[in-house]
Amino acid sequence: MRAYHYTEVPAEKAEEGAKDTTVRWVISQRQGAPNFAMRVFEVGPGGHTPQHEHPWEHEIFVLAGRGRVKAGETEQDLTEGCVVYVAPGERHQFLAGAEGMRMICCVPHPKDE
Amino acid sequence: MRAYHYTEVPAEKAEEGAKDTTVRWVISQRQGAPNFAMRVFEVGPGGHTPQHEHPWEHEIFVLAGRGRVKAGETEQDLTEGCVVYVAPGERHQFLAGAEGMRMICCVPHPKDE
Repeated sequence: MRAYHYTEVPAEKAEEGAKDTTVRWVISQRQGAPNFAMRVFEVGPGGHTPQHEHPWEHEIFVLAGRGRVKAGETEQDLTEGCVVYVAPGERHQFLAGAEGMRMICCVPHPKDE
Repeated sequence: MRAYHYTEVPAEKAEEGAKDTTVRWVISQRQGAPNFAMRVFEVGPGGHTPQHEHPWEHEIFVLAGRGRVKAGETEQDLTEGCVVYVAPGERHQFLAGAEGMRMICCVPHPKDE
């Protein structure tokens, strides 16, 4: 068992296409997790994640702040306590409102590792 | 994509051995999630989850409140923002403090389904 505060894990700049967004890989293969990873994203005021798609799912929980998710033709407001499921292959983007947004995003490990 | 507040998912009584604990399966095979599920547990003041072990991991994030995790010979205090990784096969129990504790707990889908 390992327990620690999420802020003990360093925040890294999120991937290309993101604006004012950091990611902390709070549980990953480094801790020995066999199947999936837990990350914490912090999107600054007016920031966003990349608009992209990939062959794996996202399981998301909004921890703080407000924003929107765009997926396909759909947009939906998000606030603390919202859950989002993005299916494999769905184009998606998360956009923070004026106060920013913090969220958990879990993803399966890459299948070829 | 599906987005909703976690409280829209019904709270069910947690499994035998738990005290004052409910679980919401906020993302599961029902939404088509292919690999793992996200649950939200609410442990009432002085309540606890069962002390048990199983051949799958837990990936946990404490959303609110305070408590403790016991695993093997180790105990650790938990507060909002704490992350806990419980490895497959580790005996573990979560205990809430006087104000209760709310936490996310992600688990892989059963391997035989």
